[in-house]
Amino acid sequence: MTKLKLRSIIDDTTTREGRFFDYCIQLLIFISLVAFSIETLPDNSAQTKQILSVIESICIIIFSIEYLLRIYVAEKPLKYIFSFYGVIDIISILPFYLHVAFDLKALRAFRIFRIFRAFKLVRYNKALKRFGIAFNIIKEELVLFFMVTLILVFLTASGIYFFENEAQPKVFSSLFHSLWWAIVTLTTVGYGDVYPITLGGRIFTFFVLIIGIGIVTIPAGLVATALTKARTIEEENDVKEEEEKNKSL
Amino acid sequence: MTKLKLRSIIDDTTTREGRFFDYCIQLLIFISLVAFSIETLPDNSAQTKQILSVIESICIIIFSIEYLLRIYVAEKPLKYIFSFYGVIDIISILPFYLHVAFDLKALRAFRIFRIFRAFKLVRYNKALKRFGIAFNIIKEELVLFFMVTLILVFLTASGIYFFENEAQPKVFSSLFHSLWWAIVTLTTVGYGDVYPITLGGRIFTFFVLIIGIGIVTIPAGLVATALTKARTIEEENDVKEEEEKNKSL
Amino acid sequence: MTKLKLRSIIDDTTTREGRFFDYCIQLLIFISLVAFSIETLPDNSAQTKQILSVIESICIIIFSIEYLLRIYVAEKPLKYIFSFYGVIDIISILPFYLHVAFDLKALRAFRIFRIFRAFKLVRYNKALKRFGIAFNIIKEELVLFFMVTLILVFLTASGIYFFENEAQPKVFSSLFHSLWWAIVTLTTVGYGDVYPITLGGRIFTFFVLIIGIGIVTIPAGLVATALTKARTIEEENDVKEEEEKNKSL
Amino acid sequence: MTKLKLRSIIDDTTTREGRFFDYCIQLLIFISLVAFSIETLPDNSAQTKQILSVIESICIIIFSIEYLLRIYVAEKPLKYIFSFYGVIDIISILPFYLHVAFDLKALRAFRIFRIFRAFKLVRYNKALKRFGIAFNIIKEELVLFFMVTLILVFLTASGIYFFENEAQPKVFSSLFHSLWWAIVTLTTVGYGDVYPITLGGRIFTFFVLIIGIGIVTIPAGLVATALTKARTIEEENDVKEEEEKNKSL
Repeated sequence: MTKLKLRSIIDDTTTREGRFFDYCIQLLIFISLVAFSIETLPDNSAQTKQILSVIESICIIIFSIEYLLRIYVAEKPLKYIFSFYGVIDIISILPFYLHVAFDLKALRAFRIFRIFRAFKLVRYNKALKRFGIAFNIIKEELVLFFMVTLILVFLTASGIYFFENEAQPKVFSSLFHSLWWAIVTLTTVGYGDVYPITLGGRIFTFFVLIIGIGIVTIPAGLVATALTKARTIEEENDVKEEEEKNKSL
Repeated sequence: MTKLKLRSIIDDTTTREGRFFDYCIQLLIFISLVAFSIETLPDNSAQTKQILSVIESICIIIFSIEYLLRIYVAEKPLKYIFSFYGVIDIISILPFYLHVAFDLKALRAFRIFRIFRAFKLVRYNKALKRFGIAFNIIKEELVLFFMVTLILVFLTASGIYFFENEAQPKVFSSLFHSLWWAIVTLTTVGYGDVYPITLGGRIFTFFVLIIGIGIVTIPAGLVATALTKARTIEEENDVKEEEEKNKSL
Repeated sequence: MTKLKLRSIIDDTTTREGRFFDYCIQLLIFISLVAFSIETLPDNSAQTKQILSVIESICIIIFSIEYLLRIYVAEKPLKYIFSFYGVIDIISILPFYLHVAFDLKALRAFRIFRIFRAFKLVRYNKALKRFGIAFNIIKEELVLFFMVTLILVFLTASGIYFFENEAQPKVFSSLFHSLWWAIVTLTTVGYGDVYPITLGGRIFTFFVLIIGIGIVTIPAGLVATALTKARTIEEENDVKEEEEKNKSL
Repeated sequence: MTKLKLRSIIDDTTTREGRFFDYCIQLLIFISLVAFSIETLPDNSAQTKQILSVIESICIIIFSIEYLLRIYVAEKPLKYIFSFYGVIDIISILPFYLHVAFDLKALRAFRIFRIFRAFKLVRYNKALKRFGIAFNIIKEELVLFFMVTLILVFLTASGIYFFENEAQPKVFSSLFHSLWWAIVTLTTVGYGDVYPITLGGRIFTFFVLIIGIGIVTIPAGLVATALTKARTIEEENDVKEEEEKNKSL
């Protein structure tokens, strides 16, 4: 099999073989993630543990071969190795080999890196590219809103600390504890483990909720409208390309 | 009554008779759903049960006649039978007949299929068609966001399991239990039955909430903007059609 | 004072006197609503009750005069009386007079109608008109989504009833109790008084949350984009009007 | 160093020195805010308190110098002093000096004003300007929705008070207590400390949630679409400016 043929299978999802290869890898990722999840169950029998271990070993072998093949077929191997997916690919298999080689307890924690395989489920496609364009359009606004959100969370936490610290010294014992309340409230999660009980704290929360919630939810709306714009840009480019093709004919 | 006349009543909601027939069926569906709801109340008297049973029997008879008539008037009966609404129509009456015919306890569970009648409340209309166009426009993005949401939920669950498992071994006893927390948090429902208590878990949740919530709520914004575009496309088509009409005159 | 002069004060918010009159009435409404709120406090002293009663009486007198004046200056008095604000105006003062006239305990409940005065705080203006245009644009979609939301809530409630009824017979004792859970969950309020505990119920909730929440939040996005369109329509109309004016000169 | 040179460092973020100065100040603000947060921890050792005090003193000195320099380089010193950032700048340092000068316990509370330093993290930039344009476009709608939200919260609170006051006299003891429930519910926070338990109250909440939530979340969508429009306006202006430049050449 030539390198070119191999590349059309591994790197190209437009060919029939490429798509089949992609589906196989994604199925394997899914299986390995399910196996990882089952592994965390507290009362696994010895037999279950063994089966999971075998599944993990098989997955690691296949992912390792896939990684080596991707380096082999890449036009610029180094570019692939240091690309986002290249790093993900190595991170999700490396802990296994390190564990086998050194068998240190300290390395066990790194086994959680296996979950980064999940990122491999979304490879480059048209919708993702569109998302990239949209992200570029509203980069400045997103940074601004991220900053404003952080400041808002901080100010809200300070305010509630001022009002509630005396009444609930255990719950709002410091600004850091208040930050927990602020983020849970401003994102409207509202677990109910922490909430104001003083009159001042409640009035403060009243106004924070009316004004603050909008600010935290604006970025989602921004992304949605930017994606719509990204699609328009894309379509215009497609039209232009077609026109240029027709001209050159 | 000719078949054509019958079709105008049953299939066509633009005629006066058709609209009347439609309203009658919808009213009946509503009554049968209310009856079903009352049936689930724990302390129904024998008399109430009998009344509900009579209502259900009447509904079943009328829905059966409706089903047979729809097959009769359909231009392509098979196409109707295997269409979405054809399947809904049969599923919502079949359990009753199976129950009568075999009287098996195992079949009782299927009685819940009656609730699928609710789908019959929304028959084909202009707004639904527009929704179909909008859905087609953003199909790729929706699939991508669905994938990203699933991956995000999985990674969030893994993270919180890593931080909280030791401190709350009962609540975050496995990745599956953590998944429950992750979905309840990322959708901002926040029941308050499960929440992080360690410092690490709370800091992790802090950043997950700031970044993650936007991603989960973007699809709603996408649908809203796509629906606006679908309407524009529709209007342009209407204008074109009118222009062509005027030309041909 | 002529009827025309009076009308410019009461009905017209573009004149200086009209705006002043409007602010006075709004301030009075605000005072009367605060008084109503204080009235509901459990431990009011006899003196406080008397002060509140005096405030209410004064408000009622002024609102009555305002109501009569509005009828007097209206070009078509009957049209005003049966308009939205006409009905609100009478509803918010009538309970007081009925109470004085008959002094029946049964009428006390109607005193809550006083809160409808709150509607008077938003009189007709440009932004409200724009909202009307936007509402007209997306009327069909809103009705569809309202229907779909109701059906979704019903189906979700049925599903959770199926999964949780046996495990939590007290909490999910009927479909009506499940409906409470369904609406609290799908709107992401999540009080935490009711939540699934079985594996089946939690998996069911997982998928309901991923798919369902978008549907419930779409209408808000629709209104936002429709309002933007309504503004565009308005601006185009303004431009047209100006052009026509320039032509006619 | 000339005044002009100094101005290019302090007021201008487009030069290399200006950007460096800006980053230094922002880093210092961040450090001082973290110090403030640590200060609120209940069990700080004497040594920690001393370190924090030193950090605060250094920050105050540098912020004071910055404030004086900003007045010095400003073209119109008074305009800067009474501008938003001018007021923030003085508010965040003044409490320290007052505390040193008078050493009154009553002044301790003002130390919380230090948190307003957080506002200094977002200085004037392009995205903020765009936000200003967007805000101007939808000012009227935002005011309207703010009013409508307040009225909705008030009416919802009145309704739930009517339904729940008898069943839960402690929790819904007055309209003010009900307002707390109303805002926590309509913003979908849902702590779970207060919720309806009567049938009437739950049915009321059901309809309030279906209709009300959209209204509270619309402003966020409005801002998002307005920001998109603000960007379009900006781009058109840029194109115009460029065209005019080209013409004048």
